Amino acid sequence: MFVDEDNITELAVQRWATAHSPRLGELMTAFVRHLHEFAREVRLTEAEWMAAIEWLTAAGQTCDDKRQELILTSDVLGLSTLVVQLNNRFAPQATPATVLGPFHVDGSPTAPYGFDMSDGIEGIPLFFTGKVTDTEGKPLPGVVLDVWQADADGAYEAQLPEIDEARLRAKYRTREDGTYCIRTIAPRGYAIPMDGPVGDLMRKTDISHFRPAHVHFLIDEPGYRKLTTHLFQEGGQYLESDVVFGTKDALITPFAERPAGAAPDGGTIEVAYLRAEYDFVLQPG
Amino acid sequence: MFVDEDNITELAVQRWATAHSPRLGELMTAFVRHLHEFAREVRLTEAEWMAAIEWLTAAGQTCDDKRQELILTSDVLGLSTLVVQLNNRFAPQATPATVLGPFHVDGSPTAPYGFDMSDGIEGIPLFFTGKVTDTEGKPLPGVVLDVWQADADGAYEAQLPEIDEARLRAKYRTREDGTYCIRTIAPRGYAIPMDGPVGDLMRKTDISHFRPAHVHFLIDEPGYRKLTTHLFQEGGQYLESDVVFGTKDALITPFAERPAGAAPDGGTIEVAYLRAEYDFVLQPG
Repeated sequence: MFVDEDNITELAVQRWATAHSPRLGELMTAFVRHLHEFAREVRLTEAEWMAAIEWLTAAGQTCDDKRQELILTSDVLGLSTLVVQLNNRFAPQATPATVLGPFHVDGSPTAPYGFDMSDGIEGIPLFFTGKVTDTEGKPLPGVVLDVWQADADGAYEAQLPEIDEARLRAKYRTREDGTYCIRTIAPRGYAIPMDGPVGDLMRKTDISHFRPAHVHFLIDEPGYRKLTTHLFQEGGQYLESDVVFGTKDALITPFAERPAGAAPDGGTIEVAYLRAEYDFVLQPG
Repeated sequence: MFVDEDNITELAVQRWATAHSPRLGELMTAFVRHLHEFAREVRLTEAEWMAAIEWLTAAGQTCDDKRQELILTSDVLGLSTLVVQLNNRFAPQATPATVLGPFHVDGSPTAPYGFDMSDGIEGIPLFFTGKVTDTEGKPLPGVVLDVWQADADGAYEAQLPEIDEARLRAKYRTREDGTYCIRTIAPRGYAIPMDGPVGDLMRKTDISHFRPAHVHFLIDEPGYRKLTTHLFQEGGQYLESDVVFGTKDALITPFAERPAGAAPDGGTIEVAYLRAEYDFVLQPG
C-alpha cells in the first residue's frame, strides 16, 4: 500500500509501533499523531516547514556546555512547566515544585548553618530561615537543601567562564529541630538569553523576556518526593509574566527589610538586610 | 493568575497569540496546543523529557553542510511526506509530487538531449525517455527537467567531499515535440545515514532503514505547479517499505532490459542497457 494524504499518518503510526520497548512505541506513535494533526490543522506550507527545520537546527547548534537553547525552547512554550506539573502532583499543603532550569550544578559544597554563599559578591544581604517538615508539620532534621541562584547581572555560575570555586550555590542541612539558615544576596529579575533562535522568535511577539527574582532549591530526602522549586520575592517585577511559567502563589515570600544589628544566624550584621521566612513541606512518597 | 496543571496550556497559548504576524500566531498557538496534548496524553516523565531534549540537541549538532539530520527526522516520522501531500493536491492524471530530500544542488549544468549525466561512473546504463505534457496531453516544448540521483553506493554529490564538477545531476530540456532523453546509470536502493541520532532511534524499532532505487526530478515551468518528484524502478526492493514514505504507485516505472545496439538517443550503444519510458504531466496553476 502506497502513501496518500489520508493514510500517511496511519502508516507512520504503524511503523513506529514496532518499537521494541512498549513505552517507546507509545511515545513515538502519540508524537507522530500529534505532529501530523498540527501540520494538518494549520496546513503547514513547505516554506514554513523548511523555516521550522532551520530554526530547530540553529537551536541545536546554539547549545554548548554553558547553554541549552532547547530547554529554553521547552520553557518558553510552557512544556517544561507542564511536565513538572504532570510529575509532581503533591498534596495542597506540600511545597509545590517548579522548573529545574538548566543551571543546576551537581556537588555544591556543604555549608554550615547561616553560611554566606554569596561570599564577597556585591548585593543586599538576604537570609532565608525556616523549617523543613513533613505534611503533618513534623520537623525533619538533617535534610539537605541544595541552593543556587543568579548574581545581580542574572548570570549563574554555569554560564560564566571557568570559576575555581562554588559561586552562589551551597548545600545546607537542617538542624535537629528541622531549622535552616541561609545567607546570600537578594536575587534580581533577569532576561532569558535573547541572542539566539529563542530570542529571534520571542521578538516577533509581545511576550516579556523576563523572569522574576528567585532562588532555586532542590531537596532530595529519602522517604519523600524529590522537591525542585524556587522561592520568589513578593512584590517583585515580572511575577505575573514569568517567561518560563514558573511562578506559583505558594512560592512567593516576603523579603522583609531589617535594620543592621542582630542577624538571623545568631550573630550581628553591620548593614540593613532582607529576611525571608519559609517552611518547606515535603510530600511523602 | 499563576500556573497550574489545568491552566498552563491556555496561558501559553495566550502568550504566543501575541505574535505580530497572524500566521505566526496561528502556527505557534496550534503547536503549543498539540505539544501539550502529546505530553498530557502520554504523561511524559521528567526523564523522558530530558532524553528528548538531549536527542534533539544531538540531532541539531549532527547537521552540517553535507548532512541534515532534522530533515531526516521529519522524513522518518512521515511529516515531510504529509507536508508534500498538503501542498500538492494535483489532479489524478497529473504526475504526483514526492519529497525533495536534502540532496538537491542548485545550478546543475544544462545538458543536451541524450546527454550521459553519469559520465564515466560505473553502473548499468539507463535511459529515461518520454514527453512532458499538460493535463490535456498537450506536449510542452522547452521545459527544463532538473535531474539528480545517488551513485551505486547510495551517495549523492552533496554528501561527498568537494567535487569539482556536477556528478550525477544535470538539467535537460524538452524538444519542440515535448520529448526528452536522459542517459544515466541505474540507481540502487540505499540505507539512510544510520550513524546519528535518527539511526540510534531507528535501531530501537523494526523499521526498515532503506529507500527503494529512484531518480529525482524537479520541473518548475511557468504556468504550472512546481513538480518535485522521483521515478522508482518497478520490481525493486523496498518499494513497500520506503523509510521516508516517498513511494507512490504512479511513480513506479518499468526499467526494461534492452540489448546492445540502437540506443534511445538515436545513436548506438555497445552494451545492454535499461530503458524507462515516462510521460510527466504538469498540473496547471
